[in-house]
Amino acid sequence: MTVQDALAGLQAVLGDRLSRSKSDLETHGASETHFPLTPPDAVAYPESTAEVAEIMKICARAQCPVIGWGAGTSLEGHGLAVMGGVAVDFSRMDKVLELRAEDMQVRVQPGLTREALNHELRSTGLFFPVDPGANATLGGMAATRASGTTAVRYGTMAENVLALEAVLADGTVIRTGSGARKSSSGYDLTRLLIGSEGTLALITDLTLRLQGQPEAVAAATCAFAKIGDAVDCVIATIQAGLPMARIEFIDAATARAVNAYSGSDLPEMPHLLVEFHGSPSSVEADAAVFGELASDMNGQAFQWASHEEDRTALWAMRHHAYWAILASRKGCKAIVTDMCVPISRLAEAVDSTAEDIAQVGFEGPILGHVGDGNFHAVLLIDPAAPDDWEKAKRIANTMAERALAMGGTITGEHGVGMGKLHLMEAEHGAAWQVMAEVKRALDPGNILNPGKVVHWGGNK
Amino acid sequence: MTVQDALAGLQAVLGDRLSRSKSDLETHGASETHFPLTPPDAVAYPESTAEVAEIMKICARAQCPVIGWGAGTSLEGHGLAVMGGVAVDFSRMDKVLELRAEDMQVRVQPGLTREALNHELRSTGLFFPVDPGANATLGGMAATRASGTTAVRYGTMAENVLALEAVLADGTVIRTGSGARKSSSGYDLTRLLIGSEGTLALITDLTLRLQGQPEAVAAATCAFAKIGDAVDCVIATIQAGLPMARIEFIDAATARAVNAYSGSDLPEMPHLLVEFHGSPSSVEADAAVFGELASDMNGQAFQWASHEEDRTALWAMRHHAYWAILASRKGCKAIVTDMCVPISRLAEAVDSTAEDIAQVGFEGPILGHVGDGNFHAVLLIDPAAPDDWEKAKRIANTMAERALAMGGTITGEHGVGMGKLHLMEAEHGAAWQVMAEVKRALDPGNILNPGKVVHWGGNK
Repeated sequence: MTVQDALAGLQAVLGDRLSRSKSDLETHGASETHFPLTPPDAVAYPESTAEVAEIMKICARAQCPVIGWGAGTSLEGHGLAVMGGVAVDFSRMDKVLELRAEDMQVRVQPGLTREALNHELRSTGLFFPVDPGANATLGGMAATRASGTTAVRYGTMAENVLALEAVLADGTVIRTGSGARKSSSGYDLTRLLIGSEGTLALITDLTLRLQGQPEAVAAATCAFAKIGDAVDCVIATIQAGLPMARIEFIDAATARAVNAYSGSDLPEMPHLLVEFHGSPSSVEADAAVFGELASDMNGQAFQWASHEEDRTALWAMRHHAYWAILASRKGCKAIVTDMCVPISRLAEAVDSTAEDIAQVGFEGPILGHVGDGNFHAVLLIDPAAPDDWEKAKRIANTMAERALAMGGTITGEHGVGMGKLHLMEAEHGAAWQVMAEVKRALDPGNILNPGKVVHWGGNK
Repeated sequence: MTVQDALAGLQAVLGDRLSRSKSDLETHGASETHFPLTPPDAVAYPESTAEVAEIMKICARAQCPVIGWGAGTSLEGHGLAVMGGVAVDFSRMDKVLELRAEDMQVRVQPGLTREALNHELRSTGLFFPVDPGANATLGGMAATRASGTTAVRYGTMAENVLALEAVLADGTVIRTGSGARKSSSGYDLTRLLIGSEGTLALITDLTLRLQGQPEAVAAATCAFAKIGDAVDCVIATIQAGLPMARIEFIDAATARAVNAYSGSDLPEMPHLLVEFHGSPSSVEADAAVFGELASDMNGQAFQWASHEEDRTALWAMRHHAYWAILASRKGCKAIVTDMCVPISRLAEAVDSTAEDIAQVGFEGPILGHVGDGNFHAVLLIDPAAPDDWEKAKRIANTMAERALAMGGTITGEHGVGMGKLHLMEAEHGAAWQVMAEVKRALDPGNILNPGKVVHWGGNK
């Protein structure tokens, strides 16, 4: 059996919802970062769980790889068809299936984006908090254990998905979790699938926890003379137990880039961007405490975004930072790094990273979700300069090794994909073999997103 | 190879820390509830991870079952040696290994109890919040995904364990997770082991998240004329987003039993027992909102426990409720049920359970962690009355089926053990087979707590 046999079978089921057009293949073989174009053999557009199950059965018989595809916003090449096969694009499975407002839960299809969900929720008094910046699909966010700006308060996808429906490698449909807020009933398959990057199952339905829209919201920007002062302010804030909804760091280079891109007027200095959620009185009290901590660390140019449109502009500016940085140097490409360390090591980790980048003479703005100890450097590469790639990769590897030496992780939120596979053994040691054993148990034919997360056979 | 071969090998390694005394075997074959005595062949008392790994290697060679043992406070017979073998008692591995106060983390050995940990933390301004009532070991709490009175605010063990060291079935030592607050680096093996009830690995080291001791704490009891009113008050509280630290329900029979046992003077009515954590002003504000919601539901006899010793007495009374109920009927035994439903179905679930119990003519006080939709009935059995067992089991099964019909789970926190195994297929369907596949991948010889969580071979 071959991929061609699979395609014939899929065509019979899906008709013109199986695409082999060049533009479709290239869209589904591209990445937002530096990975080379790696197109699949075809793109399937299922409209139901039953169709996804049928696709899996046909592909399993033909030993044809199957790669889930959401919005394509991954930064580590999760969706690249490195062994060919079929991309399963969930864009036609993008409905809110059931809103259970009383239980503060919603059941959605995997192709729904987080912004579309929050748009549908806007009149309910509820919202879905996980915010990776990109308007990713909820299925993709679950598959990559996404988090982002609000994780410091509301947690990551691991804390905000209650239940899943998923299609296994042989086409079996399973349900994991329930509508209960907690359970001790057997292995936590929900959390096993969250972050498995499409290598264990395709997610076809998600039950999400919602939060009440806060009665009061306040946001602010605060500048610091030194990176270390800003980071020390973060550490003091977390240790004081202040319930920050967001606490983001950008360095001076990022401030300059976003000013040019978004028309903001931040001083070209390191900044914290913060947000408070709560009652009017608690927001006021929290903001006052934060203000004191920031003053202690020589924070300055404190600017409040008290109107909703100012806050929207603030977070849009933050979310567009990656594009702003890319635009700051014409014709460049980016290697985006992601590391996460215990909060006590954060200042040292950021400083050392800035030194590494300066030493190579690169532009590499640093920014991140520092309330979690998570930050990124966007290393700007001249694609024509052959040395640049190697230098940038060396910096990224050094950062990952430093994260491990500090007791942290090689990726706080971007995931493994193609970019971090070579670092998995260094982080997990023998536990990486356990991951491979789980993969072999659930996908013995290695057809679900092969080449990602684990090495087949468990060896390098 | 036989169990006897394993014992000879273990004796050589452990000397007199391998016990075969009758009293030791009986202690490690007993349960706090109704399960018959099921002793192991021996009890091992390791003092290090290396010894646990050695024990596993010896037992793997001899195909001798290995059962982890903490404080023995499980209510579902998790630790019973249904296929014989060796109980690994972690009581000599009970140290705090490393306090990282700046990161609000602590690394501990599995035999440390939660009360001992909080005793050690008392001068640090930090505490470990998960509180299942019993003074369980932290290893046991992780293995059973324990939760309890504070999960509504701080989450269960799944949200409060950052990293584990564990010994696999072949004696390999792995580390899962890291000191970072979040990670997207591969499969979430930490959460796979949490709740696996010792069937996938033995936990030898845990990194736990700590919380800041709240600046202000207030607790109160509030009586209601009807169960439904108390439960409706809970639902309103959760939906209002009030950050309750605890919100516990006890029915009139439980109030009567605890009065007799603990010397309290609660009106013999359904009650909510609540606690607020925060700043003095936020606690005051939260308590005022709760007071209004309770008044709306005809709450009465509101009593504040404002002094620390009053709060200690209040929660000791709650934690001893099981023993109080057992003592309320001389010579009785208990079947303790545990179910968890979406919060919108809680009133209906509690009412229906009370009706079921009344119909059979049983005493079966109801109480629980209702902020999570989680509650228990303690069904009191006359061990001499043969019908009682069957009747109580029928009620327990009806409750589990009702939980599933309401979109909930058969166990919110007590786990599967021996008591819920027959309900796993009804809850999980095909996903239960996936659990068996994971078990076969990680423990191909079926020596880790065999007979629990999954059916070997995946079939009934």
